[in-house]
Amino acid sequence: MKKRSGHELSRRQVLQLGLGATAAGLLPVGLEIAFPVEAQAQGQDPLPSWNDGVAKQSILNFVRVTTDSSSPEFVPPEQRIATFDQDGTLWVEHPMYSQIVYCLDRVPAVVKAKPELANVEPYKTVLSGNRAAIAQLPTDDLIKILVVTLSGMSVEDFKAQAEGWLDTARDPRWKKPYTELIYQPMIEVLTFMRANGYRTYIVTGGGQDFVRVYSEKVYGIPLEQVVGTAGGTSYGYDKDGNPVLTKEPKLLLNDNNAGKPEGIHMMIGRRPYAAFGNSTGDRQMLEYTKASRGERLAMLVLHDDATREYAYGPAQGLPDTKVGTFTPALYREAKAKGWIVISMKSDWKHIFTFDQPH
Amino acid sequence: MKKRSGHELSRRQVLQLGLGATAAGLLPVGLEIAFPVEAQAQGQDPLPSWNDGVAKQSILNFVRVTTDSSSPEFVPPEQRIATFDQDGTLWVEHPMYSQIVYCLDRVPAVVKAKPELANVEPYKTVLSGNRAAIAQLPTDDLIKILVVTLSGMSVEDFKAQAEGWLDTARDPRWKKPYTELIYQPMIEVLTFMRANGYRTYIVTGGGQDFVRVYSEKVYGIPLEQVVGTAGGTSYGYDKDGNPVLTKEPKLLLNDNNAGKPEGIHMMIGRRPYAAFGNSTGDRQMLEYTKASRGERLAMLVLHDDATREYAYGPAQGLPDTKVGTFTPALYREAKAKGWIVISMKSDWKHIFTFDQPH
Repeated sequence: MKKRSGHELSRRQVLQLGLGATAAGLLPVGLEIAFPVEAQAQGQDPLPSWNDGVAKQSILNFVRVTTDSSSPEFVPPEQRIATFDQDGTLWVEHPMYSQIVYCLDRVPAVVKAKPELANVEPYKTVLSGNRAAIAQLPTDDLIKILVVTLSGMSVEDFKAQAEGWLDTARDPRWKKPYTELIYQPMIEVLTFMRANGYRTYIVTGGGQDFVRVYSEKVYGIPLEQVVGTAGGTSYGYDKDGNPVLTKEPKLLLNDNNAGKPEGIHMMIGRRPYAAFGNSTGDRQMLEYTKASRGERLAMLVLHDDATREYAYGPAQGLPDTKVGTFTPALYREAKAKGWIVISMKSDWKHIFTFDQPH
Repeated sequence: MKKRSGHELSRRQVLQLGLGATAAGLLPVGLEIAFPVEAQAQGQDPLPSWNDGVAKQSILNFVRVTTDSSSPEFVPPEQRIATFDQDGTLWVEHPMYSQIVYCLDRVPAVVKAKPELANVEPYKTVLSGNRAAIAQLPTDDLIKILVVTLSGMSVEDFKAQAEGWLDTARDPRWKKPYTELIYQPMIEVLTFMRANGYRTYIVTGGGQDFVRVYSEKVYGIPLEQVVGTAGGTSYGYDKDGNPVLTKEPKLLLNDNNAGKPEGIHMMIGRRPYAAFGNSTGDRQMLEYTKASRGERLAMLVLHDDATREYAYGPAQGLPDTKVGTFTPALYREAKAKGWIVISMKSDWKHIFTFDQPH
């Protein structure tokens, strides 16, 4: 028997760290780092991709005061919950959510199985490959495409389809898998918070089943810590009598806006101590996180780096995009309520793991 | 840095063990036991309240073969999920689910706030205190009572109401708090599985918010590992502008029968390796658990001990109760499919922590 420090990594945290850090190219799986807070005190920087400034200091300070047992703001380990939006917060969302690209890319396979759809809209437009026309599809048509590509199959078949796409699809700008377009500074935040006893959750407007396909490998976040927009399943049997869960076109949770705190209550049952987002879809989650006793951290990623990533929202350019709705009103609210705005341009030394210096 | 054994407890597991074992009176909080499987090999029995037999050996064997890295049935730690029904599996469900008692006991407070209900059925019957009449209330009336006592308040107010009741309510037979009517042998199973890297989930037909009020303290199971029948919440603001989640009379998940595997998919996203139940409401969960590759454990608690607890279902007596629907058909299915039936009378040395010998 051996007494452990309150700051030592749990086996599960090590697993998550190993997975997440490996995905980010930092550490081999299984390498264990003990006493991260002490390491920090000894000069090792847990957030090396962050420039010094308010954003970085806010994260370091929050973790310090909530995990130091002598601090009045100490948070018991079982209550340490941190929630992260995904699109635009952990990975690139521009010019189109990756999951929407997935659904569009799935249309040919759907039409192959149901040839009668080939001359029906919106499938006809998608099959045409006319990007301008596809971008103009109305929301109702997009929903038809989501329904036909995200339901009707077993949960295992869906997973296999999504894995196949993730293995082969490439972002058109960087020519890399979408799962490599993750923000290195945020991977460091996930790793740092887990190393200090926080359970890190993804709370995304994206599909829960979709994100669960890669959350463990890419972010070190286990499937059960992904809260997303969720459709129902139905339990039944295949022709051999084996039980099957089939994905149904029935919305159980729209995990955007007010749906984020509602989803957090359903899936976690505790109010987060820290929340990270980048758009109006995250507003209520940040508000809910901050509006409670004790030290709470609310942060918004501002996309203001057109050179290394994109600039949209209140900073400059692309003010009226379909995604990344970081509005001027949200920016003012953040400033008024003490939510910390992260400038990708100023606060982040590197955006992606692959653009770190060698 | 120190390399750890695959069998050492994680910090979180220790926390859960400490909480659960303390509730069961076994260990002071924080006492850490390392290498439980080795301890077992050295003669310490992880299931001391179990008589030797098929049930006990099935549990020990399952944990051994799924956690020994040299075993062909080894299960990686991140996949180790075990699910437990609550009513009749972890605590007493007879003669009435405790949560139904809670809802009935809440009626006077509801009527005090809404005096117009005093002469309206079914509230009038509940207020009369006529137990025979209350027991005869039709399902529609019971649902009205559930809705009025489980929705309409903030999630914090609900928690305070339930905590107050749990502190003061007593089971009429044992004159003890309901949270003491937990089965000591099952607490040992929870503790043993967690000590071997399994994440233990409650998957209950009971209310998710209700069970979360005491799951951590009573079972060592954190709130986020409780899957139950769940109503929606709505995000809004109180008169001071503070955000509030209000419980709504809207059913999101009916976590019974087919709803159990559906709820497991939504809340956990992985198929369990072990599942424990006691009624037809657990049938699909056990079926879903067993119908996959690898070693899987499915167990059913049979209430056949009228002296120490109750006897109902296929064993003897009380064949037509409203609860505990362990039917003869379920018993036959269990025998046919290799689900292990636990006889409370034969397999358990003690039922409750409080009836252990000193």
